[in-house]
Amino acid sequence: MAKAKNILFIMFDQLRWDYLSCYGHPHLHTPNIDRLAQKGVRFNRATIQSPICGSSRMSTYTGRYVHSHGASWNGIPLKVGEQTMGDHLRKLGMDCWLVGKTHMRADVEGMARLGLEPDSLIGARVAECGFDLFERDDGLNPIGYDGPYDPDGAKNYNAYLKAKGYEGGNPWHDFANSGLDDAGNVLSGWFLKNSREAANIAEEDSETPYMTRRGMEFIAQAKEPWCCHLSYIKPHWPYIVPHPYHDMYGANQILPPNRSKAEYENAHLVLRAFMDGPVGKAFSQEHVRQAVIPAYMGLIKQCDDQMGVLFNWLEEQGRMDDTMIVITSDHGDFLGDHWMGEKMFFHDASVKVPMIIYDPSPEADCTRGMVSDALVECIDLAPTFVDVAGGEEATHSLGHILEGETLLPILHGKAVETSRDYVICEYDYSASPMADKLGQGPRDAVMFMVADKQWKLIHCEGFEQPILFDLENDPDELCDLGESHAHEDIIRKMYDKLFRWARRNSQRTTRSEAQLVEMRTKSRGRGVVIGVYDENDVPLELTTNYRGLKADDKRKN
Amino acid sequence: MAKAKNILFIMFDQLRWDYLSCYGHPHLHTPNIDRLAQKGVRFNRATIQSPICGSSRMSTYTGRYVHSHGASWNGIPLKVGEQTMGDHLRKLGMDCWLVGKTHMRADVEGMARLGLEPDSLIGARVAECGFDLFERDDGLNPIGYDGPYDPDGAKNYNAYLKAKGYEGGNPWHDFANSGLDDAGNVLSGWFLKNSREAANIAEEDSETPYMTRRGMEFIAQAKEPWCCHLSYIKPHWPYIVPHPYHDMYGANQILPPNRSKAEYENAHLVLRAFMDGPVGKAFSQEHVRQAVIPAYMGLIKQCDDQMGVLFNWLEEQGRMDDTMIVITSDHGDFLGDHWMGEKMFFHDASVKVPMIIYDPSPEADCTRGMVSDALVECIDLAPTFVDVAGGEEATHSLGHILEGETLLPILHGKAVETSRDYVICEYDYSASPMADKLGQGPRDAVMFMVADKQWKLIHCEGFEQPILFDLENDPDELCDLGESHAHEDIIRKMYDKLFRWARRNSQRTTRSEAQLVEMRTKSRGRGVVIGVYDENDVPLELTTNYRGLKADDKRKN
Repeated sequence: MAKAKNILFIMFDQLRWDYLSCYGHPHLHTPNIDRLAQKGVRFNRATIQSPICGSSRMSTYTGRYVHSHGASWNGIPLKVGEQTMGDHLRKLGMDCWLVGKTHMRADVEGMARLGLEPDSLIGARVAECGFDLFERDDGLNPIGYDGPYDPDGAKNYNAYLKAKGYEGGNPWHDFANSGLDDAGNVLSGWFLKNSREAANIAEEDSETPYMTRRGMEFIAQAKEPWCCHLSYIKPHWPYIVPHPYHDMYGANQILPPNRSKAEYENAHLVLRAFMDGPVGKAFSQEHVRQAVIPAYMGLIKQCDDQMGVLFNWLEEQGRMDDTMIVITSDHGDFLGDHWMGEKMFFHDASVKVPMIIYDPSPEADCTRGMVSDALVECIDLAPTFVDVAGGEEATHSLGHILEGETLLPILHGKAVETSRDYVICEYDYSASPMADKLGQGPRDAVMFMVADKQWKLIHCEGFEQPILFDLENDPDELCDLGESHAHEDIIRKMYDKLFRWARRNSQRTTRSEAQLVEMRTKSRGRGVVIGVYDENDVPLELTTNYRGLKADDKRKN
Repeated sequence: MAKAKNILFIMFDQLRWDYLSCYGHPHLHTPNIDRLAQKGVRFNRATIQSPICGSSRMSTYTGRYVHSHGASWNGIPLKVGEQTMGDHLRKLGMDCWLVGKTHMRADVEGMARLGLEPDSLIGARVAECGFDLFERDDGLNPIGYDGPYDPDGAKNYNAYLKAKGYEGGNPWHDFANSGLDDAGNVLSGWFLKNSREAANIAEEDSETPYMTRRGMEFIAQAKEPWCCHLSYIKPHWPYIVPHPYHDMYGANQILPPNRSKAEYENAHLVLRAFMDGPVGKAFSQEHVRQAVIPAYMGLIKQCDDQMGVLFNWLEEQGRMDDTMIVITSDHGDFLGDHWMGEKMFFHDASVKVPMIIYDPSPEADCTRGMVSDALVECIDLAPTFVDVAGGEEATHSLGHILEGETLLPILHGKAVETSRDYVICEYDYSASPMADKLGQGPRDAVMFMVADKQWKLIHCEGFEQPILFDLENDPDELCDLGESHAHEDIIRKMYDKLFRWARRNSQRTTRSEAQLVEMRTKSRGRGVVIGVYDENDVPLELTTNYRGLKADDKRKN
């Protein structure tokens, strides 16, 4: 099977699945991304593994559920020893590079325990979630009274801005993510009322074009075969975008919020706590939506334009012929839907992401422009890349190591569905103030979502009653059936799926499934004979070393 | 709270819980171990985490369930990065040494991936499950037509025997584990019919006295505080013991097998497959029991005598005053009970182990001689040792790192029960020929046991029906209620416990529970402000770096 040589793995941050025209947005036209979808397969049910940047990404980068890798919230390090797509690809001779964001937090303590120096080749990869760095930029440089949120935030980008004459200590904030009033006052993009402003930066110097150029610079010099994770911070907040994108969209292009009064009033205790948090309250206000959503749309429009720049350049370079291109996101954005902002819950606005895969190989010609309804999880990308890199056998035998599955059979028209009958998403809020609000200790402040094509069940640890949505008859997820007696059977079946998943053997990572099967017939010739009464009860060859031996009597030494 | 200074952690291999007189054996008198029980606490419901050497031990050494550490069968390596009792104790200033067996298989591939050299200090500890080696001896040196089972098996011990004049390539087999007939023929201990013979070795040179001396040699030179894992291979097979132990017990001392015809005929498909395997068939024959059990009892009697030697010496050295002493095992031995041999299932004969803890501190005076009925798991030992080493706070906040709990409160009379309401044991037979026999793939060839004080439920993956025993009314576990309609409610409740356990967050090991709780109030001063419409909506201090800034217009660069 001919395969792509390289992989360009593009991730946007907080890009909601339905804010692209190919996914149905009526006002936000994204012709460049749509064009890629026309040339590849657009997955219509791609589900992230956790509705928060860091944990979602660690799942995508390891091909494993959050419950398996343990980095269950932003700032909880991915433990040393976890294998990443970089580890798997390098074994197959493919380099794996980062240009942009990962949200990786290194397991500094674990590395010290194993004596791994962060500045060694291996240590650096462990610290960077298996990637070699062309440029790491997590895209945020907030600074508070206790100092910066991320000492390396926007480091190279800030240096770039300074070299171009943007002044001050943090031009990332003061220019790229702020507006300016006529009196020369900086209008910080942290404040949502300023989202309407044009960012005070030349468009070409803003973050998305900058990172696109960095991606092209990487590709221009990369040794093949390569996997490049080109990872943008936008359209993630601060929600502010430079001219001309800042006023491309207005009140007429803002979709009404997907929410109902009944939904709020009847909300499950845990969901209600999230709705009633400061973020939910903010985004439930119409003036906030009116300020933020045009900026959010402008940021996405800019992303799409940059995809046009990138794809044209790849075409010129000949890379469209030998490079698999993936576009996806780490989660969505509620934007006021369901009385929520941000992403920390399980409605489609947050847990469904765009996923478009373009495979240049002739085997994929039969699926170009196809829309796939398969139950896909973001953990499928790592095994897909391993498959592209030539690890076909490995993707079939890893199973509990790479928990996702390769999508090449779908991309090549050899399968319509994945082999799973449910998808899983998890959220651990034990380190969030929400846990105090709900009175949950660190063991109980977790939630699990299990969904198939018709049903989505959310289990909140420590609470008896689940949340249940009928995705077929209530695609807007407005009616929670968790209390419905008529759905007891469905609830039980969905819990059975979750239970089956929870029992999976995810930590047996030092042996592949193929090795386990091979072990079944092994060691017969290593001299262990158990339960054998007489040497003549078993074949002679098994006991040759225990027969016909002579010795002196040593009982009294 | 005064605590012991050192820890002597003694493990026997395959020592069945009820083959000690303090646990009720009517004919096998073990006065030395009984004396320790009189001075400490004897736990009556100590449960291993897997009925097979390697996996059980990896749980005990890590303080984590098999489902958490992943080394789910003999020969499946413990993955690099897993923290062990050695890692925890060394952080607290206590050394952690091995004298004897661990059954650890190093994660060679994972170590290579992280650049860990097996001969470096850190690499050696990772390869040896966190122990520093005084002597490692896994106690078996089988040799077949494909070569040795374990190239390092009985290495030092064989050298010792050779130096003492025992000849041939493998005196471990030819002398320590074989008899001799009058014509000078070696009667291999691998064949159960030879279990009646006296091993052809001076008693003092046999394995148990040898390892006892090695333990004393370690202690005599150890830098305090130390934890010493003195880990014997016996009474594990080959079942053969030197004079005078080989004929101390005879037909009158062998207890009748605990089994019934109905139990066999009605056995669950999976249990039946184990019964019908070659080992089950062998031990179901009375002549096999008659040959093996006296030797097994003799081996235990020798172990007890060696405990007498050891304890007397410790007394002389003053170590009884400052050393916690633990006696336990890694699993039991069916010995024909339930139509089974060996240990690979979940009846008490296999999953219940002796556990005696002697704590020299005055706080433990109030519990000397006590028998505890608490639900204890072998994963409780690691946190108990951490507690002894001064990590009291750690044992309360690790939770998902050390999954067991410290037993010091029980030892000190401050608690009667542990905090758990069920114990868990697992068996992964995916790498065993039994998986082929039952037609199970690597993902389904696993079983889970969940038990409380009254009920024991066994779930076999891939099979709808569980096995259920009523431990109160059927302590011999002869009547499987898994099909009983009257017990549907009990079955559901036991499954609920297993489900709750399966959902536990066991991989979030880079942050303790205390750290997670601390994170709830963190990062407010790091400049991230989400969902804030107007700067005046939040306290001034949170946004100082975003206010009052001036800039030039940079929109057209």
